[in-house]
Amino acid sequence: MVEKIRAIQDEYPEDFAWCYGCGRMNKDGHHFRTAWDGEQTVTIYEPKEEHIAIPGFVYGGLIGALVDCHGTGSASLALHRKNGFEPGSGETPPRFVTGSLHVDFLKPTPQNVTLKAVGKVEEIHPKKFKVITEVFAGEELCARGEVLAVVMPNTFGKQ
Amino acid sequence: MVEKIRAIQDEYPEDFAWCYGCGRMNKDGHHFRTAWDGEQTVTIYEPKEEHIAIPGFVYGGLIGALVDCHGTGSASLALHRKNGFEPGSGETPPRFVTGSLHVDFLKPTPQNVTLKAVGKVEEIHPKKFKVITEVFAGEELCARGEVLAVVMPNTFGKQ
Repeated sequence: MVEKIRAIQDEYPEDFAWCYGCGRMNKDGHHFRTAWDGEQTVTIYEPKEEHIAIPGFVYGGLIGALVDCHGTGSASLALHRKNGFEPGSGETPPRFVTGSLHVDFLKPTPQNVTLKAVGKVEEIHPKKFKVITEVFAGEELCARGEVLAVVMPNTFGKQ
Repeated sequence: MVEKIRAIQDEYPEDFAWCYGCGRMNKDGHHFRTAWDGEQTVTIYEPKEEHIAIPGFVYGGLIGALVDCHGTGSASLALHRKNGFEPGSGETPPRFVTGSLHVDFLKPTPQNVTLKAVGKVEEIHPKKFKVITEVFAGEELCARGEVLAVVMPNTFGKQ
């Protein structure tokens, strides 16, 4: 089922699809995939066996990574929609970078339960979006996050 | 040289040394190791080839993970010192969990440069420490983070 969603990361330009968190070209990465679910955005992920804090509980850094890429992916979905496009339309979506990441860890996140990040996107500037994310393990709310995502500047990575 | 520092994670009890970020028992993890450098704390890390955002630049989620474990490790160092102990003293250090994680990404972090997280620890409650961290790639300040670290409750992971 996860494979069938129309994820924004499936349509990032190839040069920008290498992210360890969400790049389809990065063979060692997490391959987070983010899609619309009505007016909310969703990323579903099954942590690997090694992604633990202590045995039985998911590593917070993995949850941070999920919030991060879910945030940039959600911002990309939102701006793409604002521009009149949906994943699958054939248009190249805008690529965002993370300006800041915040995560409040509300309770230990059990291992061996599917994680679901659910996001709400707010435009705070034409090139800057805030994404509020709740991370659930099954039905249980385990973390709440906020990402400020900024349209990737053309100069990104250039000195 | 990195191997010779007296890292707090080397002395976590074995049951609590499985963290994907900093647990010595987790064979697949990052093995972050945090030590005193005067009154500051330091974690040095070489990102792996796959830890990229786009080619040539480090993945922000990896930097978030570094800030996270550097934060809990720094808090453990600080409370251990307050209790009269240093790594190597033979006493078991206290283990912390992350209450919240914040990272401001200041500039793209170049790949193939050693990362150095430098932390300042402040006690804000006997069981709660704030760690302000700067992440450098070589001499360049690339990210600034803050972790609220809380002594791991005895009930951690129990319902």
